[in-house]
Amino acid sequence: MRYCFYVPDQLPALYQLGIVGAGQMARLIYQAALKFGITPRLLAEGIEDSAAQAAPDAYFAHPDTLAALAEYCEVLTFEHDRLDLGLLQMLERNGTVVRPGIKVMRAAFDKLHQRRVLSNRNFPVPPFVEAQSPDDLFDFASEHGFPLVLKSARSGPPGTRNLWIVDTRSEMLRVSAEQGDRKILVEAHQDILKELVVLVARRPGGSSRSYPVIETVMRNGTCTEVHYPADVGPRVAAEAQAIATRVADELDAVGILAVEFFLSTDGLMINEIAARPHNAGHPTIEAGPTSQFENHVRAVLDLPLGPTWTSCPAAVTINVIGGIGGVDPANHLPTALAIEGAQIHLYGKRPLPGRKLGHVTAIADDIEQARDLARRAEAALQGSRL
Amino acid sequence: MRYCFYVPDQLPALYQLGIVGAGQMARLIYQAALKFGITPRLLAEGIEDSAAQAAPDAYFAHPDTLAALAEYCEVLTFEHDRLDLGLLQMLERNGTVVRPGIKVMRAAFDKLHQRRVLSNRNFPVPPFVEAQSPDDLFDFASEHGFPLVLKSARSGPPGTRNLWIVDTRSEMLRVSAEQGDRKILVEAHQDILKELVVLVARRPGGSSRSYPVIETVMRNGTCTEVHYPADVGPRVAAEAQAIATRVADELDAVGILAVEFFLSTDGLMINEIAARPHNAGHPTIEAGPTSQFENHVRAVLDLPLGPTWTSCPAAVTINVIGGIGGVDPANHLPTALAIEGAQIHLYGKRPLPGRKLGHVTAIADDIEQARDLARRAEAALQGSRL
Repeated sequence: MRYCFYVPDQLPALYQLGIVGAGQMARLIYQAALKFGITPRLLAEGIEDSAAQAAPDAYFAHPDTLAALAEYCEVLTFEHDRLDLGLLQMLERNGTVVRPGIKVMRAAFDKLHQRRVLSNRNFPVPPFVEAQSPDDLFDFASEHGFPLVLKSARSGPPGTRNLWIVDTRSEMLRVSAEQGDRKILVEAHQDILKELVVLVARRPGGSSRSYPVIETVMRNGTCTEVHYPADVGPRVAAEAQAIATRVADELDAVGILAVEFFLSTDGLMINEIAARPHNAGHPTIEAGPTSQFENHVRAVLDLPLGPTWTSCPAAVTINVIGGIGGVDPANHLPTALAIEGAQIHLYGKRPLPGRKLGHVTAIADDIEQARDLARRAEAALQGSRL
Repeated sequence: MRYCFYVPDQLPALYQLGIVGAGQMARLIYQAALKFGITPRLLAEGIEDSAAQAAPDAYFAHPDTLAALAEYCEVLTFEHDRLDLGLLQMLERNGTVVRPGIKVMRAAFDKLHQRRVLSNRNFPVPPFVEAQSPDDLFDFASEHGFPLVLKSARSGPPGTRNLWIVDTRSEMLRVSAEQGDRKILVEAHQDILKELVVLVARRPGGSSRSYPVIETVMRNGTCTEVHYPADVGPRVAAEAQAIATRVADELDAVGILAVEFFLSTDGLMINEIAARPHNAGHPTIEAGPTSQFENHVRAVLDLPLGPTWTSCPAAVTINVIGGIGGVDPANHLPTALAIEGAQIHLYGKRPLPGRKLGHVTAIADDIEQARDLARRAEAALQGSRL
């Protein structure tokens, strides 16, 4: 554990920013703040956390630490949703500015509440119901047929499974029963053409900017590639941006709000929202003048937002995930950096299977070229060759 | 003072990087290393140093600290030249890798030695002589006429004057006498059309890449604007890049070597070299795929260099210098960030007159547009309006 005796006092109060969470998203928010001469304080879970390695003022998890961090910060923002909203409300009453804001955080953290809020406001969402009893499940299955999607309303700790696709009544009952007290919702399975994400940066006063639509390419439930901008027509793009902006307005979100969409033959539906910079937004670091991380910092500090256009025809981002063999991508930097045009980001994390250890973004004249570069760089970091 | 009990052990030894110095250049090198999951350790002079505020592992100046830092690092690199080269040679004998390297550091730190080394190798430099006695000065003045330029061979601590332009024999003698034991060189004054800088990134094995030529616009001996790329013809640009690359090769420089040129009606002459990222290289942060800071990190760690082309037609950088009134540019972020297209960097330094507190870079279709944006953003940070 480190001790931080240094509390800088020369910065305007507005810039005393605390970040709760110290994973790679916090690390990237931290770096964006450094550009403006701002050193955020972090609340980390452990000394090896990605952002804690990069920042001098990290506090470590303890029941009282969040309140202690708030004492030193004017503004708190959040990387994850393992939070006690009651405590945050109390901090807010005591004068800490909590951003993105309790209302949107409540909706983002509880997927059942989120669906209800969005559906009550007539946003397009898949049909859903809370699975309180087997009867609810049977009625919903009779109406919509199988397969069905079961989701836990709140995410468990990292590594927990939160989503199941079930094909039969008995499978549905088994999954539901296994979850015990966890609140579960069931929804109709969608035939998805594409999964899209729109990032909206929004200031407290309500001014906002949306980024061009991002496409997340999924395989076996995992996002394997991000394409930016998405290959969708201008009408779908404009509609997705308009919906996302309205969601940010309705929930009074501050900072980056990420709205995930399903695009089916029936049009756009909102899958989920996240009230923070999104994994799919990594290409904004290199593909335009203002990254999602910089605009998150600007927005939560109520500073003017930066332009959200892209400066290049195509960008592809691929996550670098820890493999079974425990290969450390840092050992393969020499090969990966030799691939011209690939931007390599590593997060300083210990290589464990399934962990996000970094990402690569390639910028090129079209998606195919960018994908080829990004795939080669990712393979190189994994110690293999494409 | 902070205590750092945490010594991460999971990174390959190569990436145990130490940076001596903790000003804004160290801060920007530090940030470039973070991208690759590398957390450099810093040797700072005080707790308020720009980079010390951003990094968890900062050690503070003390006669033994450099040796202590070297114990924890495989590679040391340097932000300033207030160094004991003898100590560095000893550390090198004990196994620390010292980069950019003793040979080029000796030439960069002592301007008289630098001139001799460059002139012995037939690089174009202005006529010069060491001012050991009044006779040396008189002889040189008779040959070249006034005005003449007197320079101290080694830079003093920040704030010291190191250059004088003299118009008469008596002024020349007075300046020379006032410098007492400081080693002084005298050189012919040049009629300068432009001042240019070429950055070369070079790996230990000798492979190198040069950036497009940068133009530094000077007023009263201070660089007020940086234009990138410089407005020079392709032959001058190619010659400057070729000379800079040869200098890097001859001096076996590793990392970024900045070669400053005078362009006169008689062609190019080398003014000075700096064996580190250069203030004039700030536009490389936004104007291309690899900043000088990232290529410095890559080079000193012997990793493949990134592409050095520019991705935009014109970039202008203006430094944000502390004014007499002690205005803090951080207080004016809200106005400055409203200027679309200006990239604002603040270094987290206490605002004192004459201090470099930050810089702004603007990217546009031509230099005039970029300059207009950058000037407006800089003025806004100073609390005034253009």
